[in-house]
Amino acid sequence: MSRQPDPSRRSEQSRQAILAAAADLCMEIGYAATTVEAIAARAGVGKQTIYRWWPSKAAVLLEYMRRIRDARLGFADTGDVRADLLAQTTAVQTLFGTNLGAVWRGLLIAAQSDDVAAGDVRAFLEVAVTEAKARLAKAQQAGELRADADLDMTVEIIFGPLYHAWLLRARPLPEAYMKDVLDLVFDGLKPGEGGTAAPQG
Amino acid sequence: MSRQPDPSRRSEQSRQAILAAAADLCMEIGYAATTVEAIAARAGVGKQTIYRWWPSKAAVLLEYMRRIRDARLGFADTGDVRADLLAQTTAVQTLFGTNLGAVWRGLLIAAQSDDVAAGDVRAFLEVAVTEAKARLAKAQQAGELRADADLDMTVEIIFGPLYHAWLLRARPLPEAYMKDVLDLVFDGLKPGEGGTAAPQG
Repeated sequence: MSRQPDPSRRSEQSRQAILAAAADLCMEIGYAATTVEAIAARAGVGKQTIYRWWPSKAAVLLEYMRRIRDARLGFADTGDVRADLLAQTTAVQTLFGTNLGAVWRGLLIAAQSDDVAAGDVRAFLEVAVTEAKARLAKAQQAGELRADADLDMTVEIIFGPLYHAWLLRARPLPEAYMKDVLDLVFDGLKPGEGGTAAPQG
Repeated sequence: MSRQPDPSRRSEQSRQAILAAAADLCMEIGYAATTVEAIAARAGVGKQTIYRWWPSKAAVLLEYMRRIRDARLGFADTGDVRADLLAQTTAVQTLFGTNLGAVWRGLLIAAQSDDVAAGDVRAFLEVAVTEAKARLAKAQQAGELRADADLDMTVEIIFGPLYHAWLLRARPLPEAYMKDVLDLVFDGLKPGEGGTAAPQG
């Protein structure tokens, strides 16, 4: 209950204001138009305040992504890998529809043309892949996942469809999209033994 | 064996030279730096020759993509859907390593920021999806694919991993990448009945 000013807390509040301003701008005007100047103006700070903490716009936005990921995109381990993957990937799908999606889309594009951003974005992506692989490795040890499944490929099989639909096709996705993807990839696309082959009505 | 000049043939030769120049430039200097001026200089034609046939750089490159697709990326129907998908997706993977990959990468990025290119690129992508869905629908009728599999989602499950690995992660892929993906998604990620759950050595 101290009323003394707390510099580290004020500094964290400024950082949060800058991160939120950057993410909102990406959603409203797009990644390319979101300059450090515009972020500073929106957050009500000087440009130099931003450069004191981050070397570039991409670095600001990656910190925003990192905080959301740490807070909301971890993998649970309930002993049921399909349920845990469903919870995590559904959270990813939901966030793609928010300003996080706009930020991530902008960073993925920047990674294709800007070498500095590319290294940071790929490193961020590889952390996400590593976290997913850790959960899948436990599933493999528990006998919930084929022992011969390559884990990098398995991550691509689980997340690739969502990226294909969201980033490339930009098609609206049903809420249960990831449930159906996980059912298809875990159970397999081939008809079950004794299953009928008749197409749907 | 006529030696008379054939204007339509000469015109087609010019078009081919322009398409090849555009694709080569994308590979060498990247999509962004590949201007209509640079394409004209490389092809040895005037800029106006290009604009007579195409409204934009994106339109030139999409025609290049379309010609390659029509010539080399069709789906066979041998009655074995996994073999037909393997042949087609392996051809896609191989082409991603050539100047076609550089062109397609550039167009996919342009589609994220340039509204005119976006419409054309998405339309091109949807034609590819429609062709894949037609092959999958036959597999469903032949009992080779689960009758309840949504075909848009199935296309995303088959092509999503390749795009995730190539476009986002930019990781080198083994030659048999698509064979292993198809085995995993058709047979399913869950261990087979009576299969062992022991992780690989």
